[in-house]
Amino acid sequence: MNETVKRILSGMTLAAMAIAVIYWYDFFYWVLPLLFIIVFSQTALIEFYRLSDRGASGRPMFLTGMLFSLLITLGYYAGLLKHDFLSEEYSPPSGFFIDALNFLYPSDSGILFIIVLFILSAMAYQMMFRPLHGAIYSAGVTVIGVMYTSLTLSHTLLYFQITDGIFFLLFIITGTLFTDIGAYFAGKFLGTHNAGLTVSPNKTYEGFAGGFIASLISMWGVQRLAVNYQFIEEFYFDFTDLIIVTVFIAALTVIGDLVESMIKRDAEKKDSASLIPGHGGMLDLIDALLFTLPLGYYYIIIRFGNAVL
Amino acid sequence: MNETVKRILSGMTLAAMAIAVIYWYDFFYWVLPLLFIIVFSQTALIEFYRLSDRGASGRPMFLTGMLFSLLITLGYYAGLLKHDFLSEEYSPPSGFFIDALNFLYPSDSGILFIIVLFILSAMAYQMMFRPLHGAIYSAGVTVIGVMYTSLTLSHTLLYFQITDGIFFLLFIITGTLFTDIGAYFAGKFLGTHNAGLTVSPNKTYEGFAGGFIASLISMWGVQRLAVNYQFIEEFYFDFTDLIIVTVFIAALTVIGDLVESMIKRDAEKKDSASLIPGHGGMLDLIDALLFTLPLGYYYIIIRFGNAVL
Repeated sequence: MNETVKRILSGMTLAAMAIAVIYWYDFFYWVLPLLFIIVFSQTALIEFYRLSDRGASGRPMFLTGMLFSLLITLGYYAGLLKHDFLSEEYSPPSGFFIDALNFLYPSDSGILFIIVLFILSAMAYQMMFRPLHGAIYSAGVTVIGVMYTSLTLSHTLLYFQITDGIFFLLFIITGTLFTDIGAYFAGKFLGTHNAGLTVSPNKTYEGFAGGFIASLISMWGVQRLAVNYQFIEEFYFDFTDLIIVTVFIAALTVIGDLVESMIKRDAEKKDSASLIPGHGGMLDLIDALLFTLPLGYYYIIIRFGNAVL
Repeated sequence: MNETVKRILSGMTLAAMAIAVIYWYDFFYWVLPLLFIIVFSQTALIEFYRLSDRGASGRPMFLTGMLFSLLITLGYYAGLLKHDFLSEEYSPPSGFFIDALNFLYPSDSGILFIIVLFILSAMAYQMMFRPLHGAIYSAGVTVIGVMYTSLTLSHTLLYFQITDGIFFLLFIITGTLFTDIGAYFAGKFLGTHNAGLTVSPNKTYEGFAGGFIASLISMWGVQRLAVNYQFIEEFYFDFTDLIIVTVFIAALTVIGDLVESMIKRDAEKKDSASLIPGHGGMLDLIDALLFTLPLGYYYIIIRFGNAVL
């Protein structure tokens, strides 16, 4: 099996899994999206930490990072449960359960509390139990790793709290994946003009153009299907809006991909891991989603405001 | 003038400034606390960045960090303005002003948006405009610097939003400063048993004990005075509570101090800067407050809950 076939097959497997998770999203208190996010963000975090391990010059704190990564995801999850119970569409199992949720998730300030506690704990732990040499590096990569993988991916849980959030989630994920797919094939079969990037020397201008076009068509298609099947009531994006959001998503996809290349090149590795046939590691797979999922969410709430909140 | 006298004089000058700021805290829309926090956190951030500059092996992004540091502080400031306008104690200047605040500070999620945007911008900026070598280090220290200095100090603005917040702010700051003062003098005049810490080889057990006792007495005194002058209605902390909060504040003060020593030793410097006579730099002065101010705030809202919110 050549690389392209491998890449397509494992991409389709993952896409099928993602669609299943989104289809059964509210099965038993949203446990499937939660598990998906935990597995993806913890795996990506471990890969990031492996890539940023510099031995005697500084090493990330794996367990501290993984613990706070989990706490951040669970914080957003508690926020989702609380939001939906308060919206009265669902009845909570018991008063105690709501009390527990109020304690765990007083508001978004609960997440900020976890973040502050994480920064200060990482620095204190480094000071108490680990070498002085490389201390700033060690604490710095421990913190940025969690922010880069888990804080970003946990934003997926916020989509379930806005009107037509499932549509927007599919819309953003599709746009991101098709930018990647379009860029890959356009680059492979049409690519002649090298973009001259040090961080990723094989990128071509034809690849970028292919990514943009594939992204535009795919997002137009998702919206068309959603309206046809009455999943959403009317179009959110007219043609101008669609061009703007495509530029935004395609640019973030390319940036996310190049940032991950930068991390690998700084670590002098080709793939982040060899977990997924044809793709490499988890980070290679989701590098663009780490940018498009959180920033796409904020784009949508800034663009549509009260219409979706 | 010897070091101790210098240290006392500049400490007293700063304490007088802080008291003036707290006394006139609501002068023209809390502009004095805001300016104080901006100056302190930006100065501390620049010192942290100077200490973490490793030349060709990685350099923090000064301007990106300073910009997002300012945005985080302004985010908390917008939250304070909005909170107080909504509490109806003050009348806002105009409807436009409230609209602007709602846009700038939709909720604490506005701060989270700034943080996510900061992480991703720092990585993207590094990828686009800076060397590949040391990229992870550069992005990591840029991020942790802002979190360590500005996210922490900005919590000061949250104290103005809780019942008797000015009292709690004075209470925490006093406990922190007197831990430092007690530890300094007890260590200097009574210190014989070295605590054997690599990160700070001159610390003695007598110093820790002196810090704890000075902190306990000073916080007891602040509460006593506040009740006597009817600044607060009744005691928040009975004797047991006071012991617990003193252990908490004194431990965080020592940890904050040692974390800053770790940063300096990793950078192979003695002082963070030579800004303040007898103290060194801004970081040397406020290292403990970076831990006690935010975590003290969360301690108070978890301990007293609805009584202060």
